[in-house]
Amino acid sequence: MRQAGRYMKEYRAIREKNAFLKICKTKELVAEITVVARRKLGVDAAILFADILLIVEALGLPLDFPKADGPLIAKPVRTAADVDALLEADPEETLGYVFDAVRLTRAELEKDVPLIGFAGAPFTIAAYLIEGGSSKDFEKTKRFLYEDPGRWEKLLAKISRVTARYLTGQVHAGVQAVQLFDSWAGCLEPSEYREHVMPHTAAVFAAIPAGVPTIHFGTGTAPFLESFAAAGSTVVGVDHRIRLDEAWQRIGYDRPIQGNMDPLVLCSSLENVKNHAAMILDQARGRAGHIFNLGHGILPDTPVENAAALVETVHETSRGIQEFLG
Amino acid sequence: MRQAGRYMKEYRAIREKNAFLKICKTKELVAEITVVARRKLGVDAAILFADILLIVEALGLPLDFPKADGPLIAKPVRTAADVDALLEADPEETLGYVFDAVRLTRAELEKDVPLIGFAGAPFTIAAYLIEGGSSKDFEKTKRFLYEDPGRWEKLLAKISRVTARYLTGQVHAGVQAVQLFDSWAGCLEPSEYREHVMPHTAAVFAAIPAGVPTIHFGTGTAPFLESFAAAGSTVVGVDHRIRLDEAWQRIGYDRPIQGNMDPLVLCSSLENVKNHAAMILDQARGRAGHIFNLGHGILPDTPVENAAALVETVHETSRGIQEFLG
Repeated sequence: MRQAGRYMKEYRAIREKNAFLKICKTKELVAEITVVARRKLGVDAAILFADILLIVEALGLPLDFPKADGPLIAKPVRTAADVDALLEADPEETLGYVFDAVRLTRAELEKDVPLIGFAGAPFTIAAYLIEGGSSKDFEKTKRFLYEDPGRWEKLLAKISRVTARYLTGQVHAGVQAVQLFDSWAGCLEPSEYREHVMPHTAAVFAAIPAGVPTIHFGTGTAPFLESFAAAGSTVVGVDHRIRLDEAWQRIGYDRPIQGNMDPLVLCSSLENVKNHAAMILDQARGRAGHIFNLGHGILPDTPVENAAALVETVHETSRGIQEFLG
Repeated sequence: MRQAGRYMKEYRAIREKNAFLKICKTKELVAEITVVARRKLGVDAAILFADILLIVEALGLPLDFPKADGPLIAKPVRTAADVDALLEADPEETLGYVFDAVRLTRAELEKDVPLIGFAGAPFTIAAYLIEGGSSKDFEKTKRFLYEDPGRWEKLLAKISRVTARYLTGQVHAGVQAVQLFDSWAGCLEPSEYREHVMPHTAAVFAAIPAGVPTIHFGTGTAPFLESFAAAGSTVVGVDHRIRLDEAWQRIGYDRPIQGNMDPLVLCSSLENVKNHAAMILDQARGRAGHIFNLGHGILPDTPVENAAALVETVHETSRGIQEFLG
């Protein structure tokens, strides 16, 4: 997830003077935010400052963040005609600013620190397009699937193709790894995920240039973790809702795993943060292939010193991300 | 879950003229709503029309439903002193109207139709008390746990004791089975659930009069289903996020299981409803001990005819609830 955010005063200072989308589209700001957050936390890799919804514009729809960080897609996708009308613009034209930001960030970042690019997974992007923004129960999204599976497949295939080109563009611009965020997949039935979602995510991973490690992020995916892993990423992410050791056993120990601290833990006492970190590291049992991470996005009122202390604690006991991305 | 609701015109007609809490406190309305909904759907058992938050008043806090169905607890629990100040009122005094409603409903309901009483599980009630209403990420609830586990145990033990007396009162008033709703347990880490929640839920089940079947309802509990089942209910509920056959294998086939259709399916075409029902029934493979149910509450814009058609479809292939509750 994003390393910078409202919890960090350096970010707040920039955000006060600039709209969210403006920041994403200004390479100097992206590079500054990304590099500063990485250094401040002391993490082993930097994740590009961006948003999974930037791709919405490449699909030909207007995107806005009218209040706080809540996105709004003023013309949501509701019909088969809406799906047909979506563009498959060349990301170089519509998202070239992201590639510019990657190049500048890569140049400003310490040489031995990998830079991770990312995009939203086809399901989560589709859900945003259909709902028009955030949702609690994804009612419109599921109805869209139930009512016309053919229309659904078309939509996800379209998103999947644009996403593959977008991530490939990020790789060419200089990221060392890419991550797909399927933040909302956990609302699905296991069979829905396997049949109507996984193949589209798999198509994205399959299209990433060979040799580039990929990370698959999801929340609430424990019930269908095997299908989630089957999408074919290098690294499988899990959230706090499943024990790390159980998750790892299910996906196989030959597969790197990422996770899985509840971000809320970071809002509690330092002692609690350390205890939780120790519990997760104990479940990893020092195996190679564990990327320690939060299970979901960092919360606005996280004390920065807790986040930094977590990184330190992990560094004391874990071999870190380097051996997979280095 | 509730069988009546805004999706049913008979309920809407009553609700237009009466505040939600007023309905819950008027035995004639409760009996009418419960009996009519059961008949209209043709389900094998009736579930009392009530709300899991009614117990809040027995704990000495004010409860309100200011808009639609969103509850508000104007004086949320935030400190150890707040926990100490909670009352453990005799449910007969504060919730006697529920027992009256049970008696009248039991009298008006067909003799061979079991009546199910219910309450919120200690965790979900605690989360409402701490958040002051609904929540997306249960930030305050988890902090309350992290900051002072002793205070947490005290709160859940208190809720658990009152809940046990409340459900026992419902049994004495005439319900044939009781259900505990832990609607929000899915936000927890598996170890948090097992250590800080399950024992309190188990204490409630242990206090129910012998011979009365108990049902444990939860959503998002697949990752720690074994701990969820270990709370000791007769029947274990699962939501749509896990395959029914996998869930059943994990809890053991000697344990009755309840679930697990996504309520959103009912908002789609009749064909989709029937296909989904067939898929779930196929996973149950005709075993004894499957209570077909939705995995969560029925949605306001569910067509009543879809709900009734689902019941018919299930009746055609399943042996139903009778053998467990009859």
